[in-house]
Formats: sequence, structure tokens, C-alpha cells
Amino acid sequence: MPLPNRWLTSLLVTYGGEALIVDCGDGAQIALKAHGSHPKDIGYILITHLHADHVAGLPGILLSISNAGRTEPVQLYGPSGLRALVRGLSILLPDLAFPLEIIEWTDKEHRVQAMGLEITAFGVDHRVPCYGYSFHLPRRPAFDVEKALALGVDRTYWRILQRGESVCVDGRRILPEQVLGAPRKGLRWVYTTDTRPTTSILLNALGADLFVCEGMYGDEDKVDKAREHKHMTFGEAVALAKAAQVKALWLTHFSPSMPNPEEYEPALVEAFPAAKVGVDGMSCTLRYDS
Amino acid sequence: MPLPNRWLTSLLVTYGGEALIVDCGDGAQIALKAHGSHPKDIGYILITHLHADHVAGLPGILLSISNAGRTEPVQLYGPSGLRALVRGLSILLPDLAFPLEIIEWTDKEHRVQAMGLEITAFGVDHRVPCYGYSFHLPRRPAFDVEKALALGVDRTYWRILQRGESVCVDGRRILPEQVLGAPRKGLRWVYTTDTRPTTSILLNALGADLFVCEGMYGDEDKVDKAREHKHMTFGEAVALAKAAQVKALWLTHFSPSMPNPEEYEPALVEAFPAAKVGVDGMSCTLRYDS
Repeated sequence: MPLPNRWLTSLLVTYGGEALIVDCGDGAQIALKAHGSHPKDIGYILITHLHADHVAGLPGILLSISNAGRTEPVQLYGPSGLRALVRGLSILLPDLAFPLEIIEWTDKEHRVQAMGLEITAFGVDHRVPCYGYSFHLPRRPAFDVEKALALGVDRTYWRILQRGESVCVDGRRILPEQVLGAPRKGLRWVYTTDTRPTTSILLNALGADLFVCEGMYGDEDKVDKAREHKHMTFGEAVALAKAAQVKALWLTHFSPSMPNPEEYEPALVEAFPAAKVGVDGMSCTLRYDS
Repeated sequence: MPLPNRWLTSLLVTYGGEALIVDCGDGAQIALKAHGSHPKDIGYILITHLHADHVAGLPGILLSISNAGRTEPVQLYGPSGLRALVRGLSILLPDLAFPLEIIEWTDKEHRVQAMGLEITAFGVDHRVPCYGYSFHLPRRPAFDVEKALALGVDRTYWRILQRGESVCVDGRRILPEQVLGAPRKGLRWVYTTDTRPTTSILLNALGADLFVCEGMYGDEDKVDKAREHKHMTFGEAVALAKAAQVKALWLTHFSPSMPNPEEYEPALVEAFPAAKVGVDGMSCTLRYDS
């Protein structure tokens, strides 16, 4: 349930001039615009599960993308039932300016490539089929200019080699590994909500640069309620973050019974110093290690 | 399309501890809560037409009423297609705490009684079937205490007589008209959006205490656009208000191409002094003439 200053959980990811969102509850189009997103750039919508607070804003988002003039396809991913839901909403979506492609998850894990990211959808543990999402932005190996010059490879070929393709220079075949350094660590972030702690979350969050996780209850006395409703306490999210050795933890998706989740932040930060209690509009830019 | 500080058009009517809403676009549940409504009191939802900006917030509204603990029925009224839309949304509405009764309008005019109000749904002129709503709160005639005393009618019977029922006092039948004064003017307000000016609006708005009307374009040069998209300019709304001799006019449902509709307020007020350019959260209490 949204509160006036705390809207429903939604994640916007922008990279290379493109954007994707994960989940869109009621009013998500308003929140996204208020926080400066460009609806036209949104080419991918990932749904965790088919509960209204995660998907009821879909017509608004789709119309907002359409009204912004997007004509390139939009891919919509989510659990089984998503296609039927969109069909049920069709009276509200008569003239989208773009082709809408719907892909339903059915297995425990799915991988897709989008926006230069490797995206993994992994099953989690909620009352209905629900997926977490892990995003990996790979980093190309460094290009060794000295090696390239020593091999007599002209600057025009460098981009091709860095892309991982071989080139032919004066009749010689030059392979990428001849001019590239060691593999480099990319960036990885994980978003998971509406779930109990699971091994799938742990494995996907291992070493992540940012782990955005639900934290339904700040009060650890509510762990029974968390078990019953298939959610997590702050402590359970911290335990996952610690086990996965993530670099940063953001909690979100708070119970409406907890109007001031920031009250729990001191205890949270004591338990996991790189943790934050989420607020609407919270954002960060992840950067490669130097 | 909503803007960050201008959400989608929705009207909340409260009377006698009950509430109804007309239209609920994306995020309406958040706006309603922000403006102090109690979702549990909402027993009637009236939809003007099945465009997303007027109905996509329905799952959120229904869940918000349900989460607030309402168990009494909620009646949902609107044009044909509403039942199919709610069926299409059913995956999002698995466990409502109250019975939801859906009534589809099919004729040019329908009348219902709700919350002590006489409500008229009247067909207007948009690209899809669309209804305006007129609300009438009747006022009982004044009770003439002196006449009652002269007739020897005890105070215990006064309420019954004022309700319009006759009573038996010491074997004599006393009729309401023996103790009631002349009929008194009640209150009437009208809400209409997404339409060209129509005779149905004029007839329903005649003498209304408040006329809430769409005003898509402040610029009268856009009258062709208004005709094409089946909307109105401010001037067209004023012409209706003048012809219907309404006591107050509020304009709403502005085009996103007009980010500052208040720029047109001076000209509007010059044309119709009892007119206002609507803003989010605008409200008033209508009272009977003294």
C-alpha cells in the first residue's frame, strides 16, 4: 500500500541512453517522470510478480512511453499470467505507438541480454510465482596500446579488436588476445522483493555492487509475520547481504504498518555499515573500479 | 497524461459519513489518501469512460478500500466494457474484503440513488462511450413547529412527519403536508469530462451549485483540436456554464501541452466571474441556502 510520501516500489535502470524498469505499481509513471526519467527510452519492463502493487501501473507506463513517441519495440517480461493480464487491459491500450512483446518466465532461472546488460531472472519464494533480477554489466579487458603498436596494428583496427573480433593487417591475422589485457570485473546489481530469503538470492547477489532487497518489517519480533506473508525482516535482508558479501544494501518495500522505517536505520547500519533505508527517488551511479 | 504536480482527474464526494469517487486514473489511491479521504467509506465508484487516465487506478482503489477493512458492498458503475475490464484485472484482485457489484450503463441516461443523493448518469460526446454525472441532494421542507403544536402533535412524531410519512395521533391521521412548509431547493453539482459541449450537459447543469467541467485547452485557437479529439476549450466550457446559469464553474482535465493552465485564469474569470482553474486537491463544502 502506498503512503502519500512513499509510493510503490519500482526500479529504473538507465545505461547508454536506454532504460528499463522493474515493477510498476499504481502511479509509477508519475514517480518516474518526477524523478527525471524519459519514458521514450524505456525499452524493457521487468515484472517480479503479478500483485497489483507491482504491476497495476502498467497501462500508465505503456501509455506514457507511447505518448512520448517511442516507436521501437518494448519488451515486457514477467511470470506466467502476464500475457492474460495485458489482454485483460487491452481496452485501455488501443493504440500503442510501439510493438509490445511479452515474454513469460516459466523456469527457475532465465537469462536475457538487453541494453548491453546480462540480465538473470531467478525464482524467489513468495505466495505467487515471483522473480528477482540480477543485472551484470561486463567490462571489456583493457586495450594494450603498446602491444598493438609493437604488432604494427593501425589505430583503425583497435575498436574491432577491443570488441573481441580478430582483424587482418597486411595479410596477418591479429587476434584480440594479442592486444587485450586480463579480464576485468564489471558491475553487478540485484533487485529482489516480495520473498523470503532464498539460496537463489544469495547466489545471484554474491559480491554484488548493489543489492536492493525488500525489508517489510524493521522489527525483528515480526519474523513470524514475515514468514506467514512471505516477506523479510530487516535482519533477514542483512543476513543475506552479509552472506553474499555485497558492497551496498538498500532496503525497500516497507509495510504500511511501519510509517517511519528510518527509525530502524541506526540498528541496520550497525549490523551492516553499507546499508541504507530506501526513500522515494533514491538513486546512484555505479562505476567500474578505476 | 499526469504531470508530477498535476495528477489525473478524479472527484471525491463525501456526505453523511459515506463517500463516492468519480474516475480513478493511475495513482488515484495515493492522491485520495494524501487529501484525507477514508478508503473504507467509499461505497460507490462511478467511471465516466474506459480510457486509462480515468480507470487504470481501479485495482489500487479497490485494494485500498479492501485493506482499509470495508466489508459492505462497493458498487462500480460505468459504460459497457467495465465488467470485462474488471474480469481482465481479476488476477490483481484475488481477495477483496467486500462484494463488488458492477453495473454497466447502456442507455443515454440512467438514474440511481446512493448515499441519499439522486445521481444521474448522462451520455456525453467523446471518442468512446462516455458519461457525465449530476448529483442532487434534495432538501426536506421546513417543519412548521407552530402548526404541529396547534394540531397537538407530540415531539416524538416530528421526525416521522418530516421524513414524509403520516402518523396517527389520538386516533387522528396527521399528514406530512399539514406540518411541512413549501418545498426547498436542495443542492446540485455536475461533473463532466472528456466531451464536446452537449445538450445533455446543459440540461443536467441547469442552475447547478457547482459545475466541474473539462477544459482541455485554454487557448481558443485550439478549438479545431478540441473538436478533433472530442474535448473542449475553456471558452466552450464557459459558454455551457453561462447557458446553464451555474453558480460556480471549476475547470479540470488540462492538456499536458498546457503546463500552466492558471495563465488563462484572468481571461476565464473575466468571461465568467464564478470560474476557477482547478488544482490538485481543490475542494469545497456545498451548503443549503440559509
